[in-house]
Amino acid sequence: MAYIVDLRSDTVTKPTESMKHAMVNSAVGDDVFGEDPTVNALESKVANLLGKQAALFVPSGTMANLIAIMVHCNKRGSEAIVGNLAHIYKYEQGGAAHVAGVLLSTVQNKPDGTFDLQEVENRIRGSDIHEPITSMVAIENTHNVCGGKVLPLQWIDELSELCKRHSIPLHMDGARLLNASAYLEVPAERIVRGCDSVALCFSKGLSAPVGSAIVGSCHFIQQARRMRKMLGGGMRQSGVLAAAAIVALDEIAPKLALDHKRAQRLGKVIEGLFLKTFSVDVASQHTNMVLVRIAEHSPLCAESVLARLAQVSLAETQGDCKTPDDEGVIVKAICFNDKTIRLTLHTEISDNDLWLAIMKITYVFKELEAAHPLIS
Amino acid sequence: MAYIVDLRSDTVTKPTESMKHAMVNSAVGDDVFGEDPTVNALESKVANLLGKQAALFVPSGTMANLIAIMVHCNKRGSEAIVGNLAHIYKYEQGGAAHVAGVLLSTVQNKPDGTFDLQEVENRIRGSDIHEPITSMVAIENTHNVCGGKVLPLQWIDELSELCKRHSIPLHMDGARLLNASAYLEVPAERIVRGCDSVALCFSKGLSAPVGSAIVGSCHFIQQARRMRKMLGGGMRQSGVLAAAAIVALDEIAPKLALDHKRAQRLGKVIEGLFLKTFSVDVASQHTNMVLVRIAEHSPLCAESVLARLAQVSLAETQGDCKTPDDEGVIVKAICFNDKTIRLTLHTEISDNDLWLAIMKITYVFKELEAAHPLIS
Amino acid sequence: MAYIVDLRSDTVTKPTESMKHAMVNSAVGDDVFGEDPTVNALESKVANLLGKQAALFVPSGTMANLIAIMVHCNKRGSEAIVGNLAHIYKYEQGGAAHVAGVLLSTVQNKPDGTFDLQEVENRIRGSDIHEPITSMVAIENTHNVCGGKVLPLQWIDELSELCKRHSIPLHMDGARLLNASAYLEVPAERIVRGCDSVALCFSKGLSAPVGSAIVGSCHFIQQARRMRKMLGGGMRQSGVLAAAAIVALDEIAPKLALDHKRAQRLGKVIEGLFLKTFSVDVASQHTNMVLVRIAEHSPLCAESVLARLAQVSLAETQGDCKTPDDEGVIVKAICFNDKTIRLTLHTEISDNDLWLAIMKITYVFKELEAAHPLIS
Amino acid sequence: MAYIVDLRSDTVTKPTESMKHAMVNSAVGDDVFGEDPTVNALESKVANLLGKQAALFVPSGTMANLIAIMVHCNKRGSEAIVGNLAHIYKYEQGGAAHVAGVLLSTVQNKPDGTFDLQEVENRIRGSDIHEPITSMVAIENTHNVCGGKVLPLQWIDELSELCKRHSIPLHMDGARLLNASAYLEVPAERIVRGCDSVALCFSKGLSAPVGSAIVGSCHFIQQARRMRKMLGGGMRQSGVLAAAAIVALDEIAPKLALDHKRAQRLGKVIEGLFLKTFSVDVASQHTNMVLVRIAEHSPLCAESVLARLAQVSLAETQGDCKTPDDEGVIVKAICFNDKTIRLTLHTEISDNDLWLAIMKITYVFKELEAAHPLIS
Repeated sequence: MAYIVDLRSDTVTKPTESMKHAMVNSAVGDDVFGEDPTVNALESKVANLLGKQAALFVPSGTMANLIAIMVHCNKRGSEAIVGNLAHIYKYEQGGAAHVAGVLLSTVQNKPDGTFDLQEVENRIRGSDIHEPITSMVAIENTHNVCGGKVLPLQWIDELSELCKRHSIPLHMDGARLLNASAYLEVPAERIVRGCDSVALCFSKGLSAPVGSAIVGSCHFIQQARRMRKMLGGGMRQSGVLAAAAIVALDEIAPKLALDHKRAQRLGKVIEGLFLKTFSVDVASQHTNMVLVRIAEHSPLCAESVLARLAQVSLAETQGDCKTPDDEGVIVKAICFNDKTIRLTLHTEISDNDLWLAIMKITYVFKELEAAHPLIS
Repeated sequence: MAYIVDLRSDTVTKPTESMKHAMVNSAVGDDVFGEDPTVNALESKVANLLGKQAALFVPSGTMANLIAIMVHCNKRGSEAIVGNLAHIYKYEQGGAAHVAGVLLSTVQNKPDGTFDLQEVENRIRGSDIHEPITSMVAIENTHNVCGGKVLPLQWIDELSELCKRHSIPLHMDGARLLNASAYLEVPAERIVRGCDSVALCFSKGLSAPVGSAIVGSCHFIQQARRMRKMLGGGMRQSGVLAAAAIVALDEIAPKLALDHKRAQRLGKVIEGLFLKTFSVDVASQHTNMVLVRIAEHSPLCAESVLARLAQVSLAETQGDCKTPDDEGVIVKAICFNDKTIRLTLHTEISDNDLWLAIMKITYVFKELEAAHPLIS
Repeated sequence: MAYIVDLRSDTVTKPTESMKHAMVNSAVGDDVFGEDPTVNALESKVANLLGKQAALFVPSGTMANLIAIMVHCNKRGSEAIVGNLAHIYKYEQGGAAHVAGVLLSTVQNKPDGTFDLQEVENRIRGSDIHEPITSMVAIENTHNVCGGKVLPLQWIDELSELCKRHSIPLHMDGARLLNASAYLEVPAERIVRGCDSVALCFSKGLSAPVGSAIVGSCHFIQQARRMRKMLGGGMRQSGVLAAAAIVALDEIAPKLALDHKRAQRLGKVIEGLFLKTFSVDVASQHTNMVLVRIAEHSPLCAESVLARLAQVSLAETQGDCKTPDDEGVIVKAICFNDKTIRLTLHTEISDNDLWLAIMKITYVFKELEAAHPLIS
Repeated sequence: MAYIVDLRSDTVTKPTESMKHAMVNSAVGDDVFGEDPTVNALESKVANLLGKQAALFVPSGTMANLIAIMVHCNKRGSEAIVGNLAHIYKYEQGGAAHVAGVLLSTVQNKPDGTFDLQEVENRIRGSDIHEPITSMVAIENTHNVCGGKVLPLQWIDELSELCKRHSIPLHMDGARLLNASAYLEVPAERIVRGCDSVALCFSKGLSAPVGSAIVGSCHFIQQARRMRKMLGGGMRQSGVLAAAAIVALDEIAPKLALDHKRAQRLGKVIEGLFLKTFSVDVASQHTNMVLVRIAEHSPLCAESVLARLAQVSLAETQGDCKTPDDEGVIVKAICFNDKTIRLTLHTEISDNDLWLAIMKITYVFKELEAAHPLIS
């Protein structure tokens, strides 16, 4: 058995010992009766953290976003403006339309996760009866498909201004908001200052097993609570999950910057290989994700590179790329598209894991470049 | 502080020590990648228990039912036939219509939780373009609003025959199915033999903190998985919850009959008081719920009786109705309607708790009858 | 070719000469630009007729009802209370749920088209998060499935009071409202006084080719206009249809009482046959529909009776039941259910047509009773 | 009163004398019973015209498109690919999402109304449970927002190939399909050869008062008929409208080329003015629409130009720009966006009307350019 370094996603993180301790030692109750003290504590903690009035614990980030859409888009024939690379648009199975009955108006995401504010302004509909009612704008921070990019504070503030001018609520899919906070060295509260609602996920880099929070005004959360019930997201003794989320905020959040640092190190190593096939733009790498681009003219595709990283050749175990016990290393990653691999750092990756991953990736990238030269 | 006996619902049950042990010691993984071994083990265990091909772990019974509706009712303009006292109709916020776009055609529930089969036959629509497409029949077992009634096996079988004849899938909201199994002394598998899908809840009498399963054919579960994702019910390391559910099936399910026995005892005591104001129909009491009816001509309503049960008078603490430490007893219950109180037994209620509850209820019921005679 | 008397429905009525003249001579314009003067005139006329602020012309009664549901039920998780024999529930394909996302809560219709007000009161939900939001009550007047019954004014007024007390809008499906007005000899305005919205159909007894109106406050109609657009009910030079509807109101509405008189005559003739197989309850027959009940113990079903009415036997053409030119008469009707036939009078049925229909029906009913005696 | 030349849209066209004659002289019946011979004749005629199996008459183009979406997207979590300038996306109030529950995936329209086929290929989703199911591609021909552009036949054929390869139905919003046919001098049947469904409108350039058809296979139309009923698009004696549509196909369709010729003439005149402020790209003008662009650096906006065209100055009535009776001319147009005016030719615009419009437009454009020079 080879040693596995799993860089597929920060969602693979398992509960820590400290979380487990909290899960079995925290007081719980029936949250449907509003009686789970740990859920209440978590909701209060998150609301404070983000400087909003109230919060609601939900089973997933997808539900957090869906609830925000359902609450903000409360008129028939509503439309939400989102980036064309947003998780809401790409990876939530069209729930906005199918469950919430809301049209998504997609504006083009720039590589930094933002989009053109003038374009947003253009998209906002008037009162013409032929057109939907623009009821919401949603942004994502950090931006997953853009490689964990942190949205510039000023841009968020300007967008927020624009939204207020048009009385349109602004929602932030902040699944990885605390990574943004760590990168900017700015409190999360400041980042979301201009947002009417925020979704925050505990089960990504924060390492809790299950759950997200949706955060906003008391009025918003009251309605969100109804929507959660309708979707089947109301849980009973969910304090067992909330307990882990509280530990995540207390103990893992402060360490997110370490993941970023390791991601920088990994990115720089790959950059430093000066390969023609594989490149990383370390300068524009903000948080815990490393996007490796495969050259357009390489015959390689992301899937085949992943497959190779998941194998251990005989040469490896006999050469430089071996673990102390000679078993070899497997690196797991995911392909973002045909020519892009994503490597994600997270709390379970120690310095030693990183060292093994670097060794393996270096070995494989060089091997692949040698075996599959660019097509001229 | 008085001693509290909480008979509101079996949903208030907290994870047992054994569950807590399992929660922190079971292997977990990212279930969105299909890699949580404990979730996989639970799903396999439940599918076997119910004699179906596959199962899916979901955050709540409401989501389990909603998913069943979404999968079975896969044509636009679909309709589902349900009892007018079904949880699906009464307590799931109309999600069938709002989320799934499905009309509910309600047939009248009899006191035993069944409904007239001829009426079902009449309700099944033809192909007239004016009419919806009857796409599903749903039953509830045990039947909550009917007081935890167990549906007669023969009736389920006949309904199943009827459904098959019309090629309409039959769904069982079996949130408390294992209570039915315990009552009938028949395996759950036999009870659901004629059902195409079943929802089973772990967080009611089974005492697990969170979660339900939806069970059916492989094809059904494949689609259910998509629906779960869309609704935001996909969770990450949900093995922490599944571990408790496995313990629930292994350790609590065999003890459900005890709850039924205690409910019988409680019912009989109240019946034996021969009060004019409060009556219980013990003969028709099947499982863990005791419905106390307040006489039509009594000036009392359920809310006021509940309020009194939640107080401790000075006389109580000095008289027969006192706990060893003289603090008195509070009994919590819920009102089902203006003239009905529901008392629910569950695994956290010991024989001693039951004895205290009986003492208190007897005291209060006598006191109330004396103070509030029937209106002639 | 036999002479056909079509008593299936008042929807079969064709535009009169006078309507045709209006259709081609009225000014029209693009109603999407709000420029069709004839549509504007019709909407204003209908609003005045019903004593409401505004009206909107729509292609069908089904769309009128659907729009009312969409506008009144403007909160997610809404529910509308309707009779279990209402057109909205039985014959609109579940559009309330599928298109509008609204749960229908059906209360049992009495034979007179009303339902129990206490039952309505019981059905109105509180603010419990498990339950939908009761957002609308809908009644039908005259009540089609109840045989064209006119709802008692006092009952409507009491229901309206009840709705106001709970701040729930009351909608009337008044497809045949003017038949009710003719029966009661009371202006339509008075009948709908307590209703927040009314749907009125021009293409039933009123004989116009196409169209209905939805009527209510200016605010309601503004939103209705948006819903009409979304559903695809916005039409261009719809003045060609509105012109016929105006004639219908001016020229056909005053003659509806004649249809009722003829329906009475037809009902009394059948009653006067004193047959065991076929009965009519003339006393409870209000408007233009005659419901013929087939005795429970008769071997005949509605379909077979209809089939016989649609045939001409040799004996008929040689005996008493023949037309002047010896060709015989066919009477078309529809079956309401297995044991009920509906005969509907309308403006195209002259006294002579009625005479022929009576002759035929008498002949066939006697023949059938003789050939198919009751089963003892 | 000035003489008005209404170039806002071809939807303003009123029924011709010949249509009126047909409307009142065609046989009609109750189409809900399938008995309107004129509707049946129209549906058969349109199906033949487009070389498809069947057709359905509906009240509007919006409903035709909505029905196509509802029928093709028959799985929960479906997505339809459309151009970002498509009528379906821009002007149908988000009905695809709100009514049909379908996500719209918008690809960027090129100026010729097409979009990149590789981009379509990229957009087609795999089977990942996070993603919607790509269930339909929709194109628009002629393309309204692109200025009445006719889609290249070869492009449609290639897109159709692509769709077939992925088993995804292709829908054409052919509201103005017969304009495309006239431009290409190719039968409509050939144009839609690769399409699974087509929407065709009778009330635009074809001048009929009301109605569209949706066309496809028998199986498709069967389901479409159900959807029409649910939406409230089922009409009674709709033969009165169908009669006009038949005349439109027989008498107006052959004359569409004349509208195109006049649009060319108008475009060339404006082009020939060699103004800096106003430009027309006649070379890329295909059918009956003339898009007048206002120079970026002009202080004028479309609204103000429209306002001026709708006024008659004293100088005009005394100068060259006057009608025979000295009253002056008003030209109505619509603004497409801040810097674009659309002038639309149609059957009601005679050569004389065109001459008057040209005179007026020339006068006003020169006047405006003189008064509002470009900002350097």
